[in-house]
Amino acid sequence: MPEKSPTDCDVVPTLEADVFARDCASRGVLQNVTSRWGLLALVALRDGEMRFSALRRRVDGVSERMLSVSLQALERDGFVNREVLQAIPPRVEYSLTHLGAETADRLAGLIDLVEGRLNDVHASQDSYDAR
Amino acid sequence: MPEKSPTDCDVVPTLEADVFARDCASRGVLQNVTSRWGLLALVALRDGEMRFSALRRRVDGVSERMLSVSLQALERDGFVNREVLQAIPPRVEYSLTHLGAETADRLAGLIDLVEGRLNDVHASQDSYDAR
Repeated sequence: MPEKSPTDCDVVPTLEADVFARDCASRGVLQNVTSRWGLLALVALRDGEMRFSALRRRVDGVSERMLSVSLQALERDGFVNREVLQAIPPRVEYSLTHLGAETADRLAGLIDLVEGRLNDVHASQDSYDAR
Repeated sequence: MPEKSPTDCDVVPTLEADVFARDCASRGVLQNVTSRWGLLALVALRDGEMRFSALRRRVDGVSERMLSVSLQALERDGFVNREVLQAIPPRVEYSLTHLGAETADRLAGLIDLVEGRLNDVHASQDSYDAR
């Protein structure tokens, strides 16, 4: 077994999680919640539980496979619940866990900021490109 | 010229930015600030202006090329200032713009949440993997 690195925060419980340390598991978790599609899925689910197909319509442009992979990672990390409902045909519904809801709130705040400042961003891009 | 899509929020100024629309420019901007290395660079710069080499040490594990690409995208979008200081040898320093600082604050909040709940995440992963 390889020697544990001192930055391996998740196997050395006395160390605090630190996303700046390359071996810290928090970094992977952060990547799952901020991934291109994971982020949008989390924020979409703030509107309430949703079936896969509805979620896919909401997250415009995502492929079935990428949405599925993103949701699976979020489910495994405990941000999303996946519930199979007994029905004909069977229905699968996704919803936020408590942690997922807290996370999605913060992501929504980030989105609001970016959307609200898009004009500033465009101005910056124009001036950068004109150099 | 192709017809503009109604979701093309950045070329139809009457439409509000909407990251859920596949053609909205806000989506690309959001991806730059939440990218694996862009996110960490933004949060690292909350500590103050930093030279490239210092930033690279702080963002443990990033390659020179990926840090450079990430910073360039953030500079173009107006989140990061890049200043070349007249010195021998010349120094390049990075710092947050006002928009970058606001964004980094929100990202730091997200990181705090994820780092603080890492035990819950591990428990969820263990139970998922044991199914």
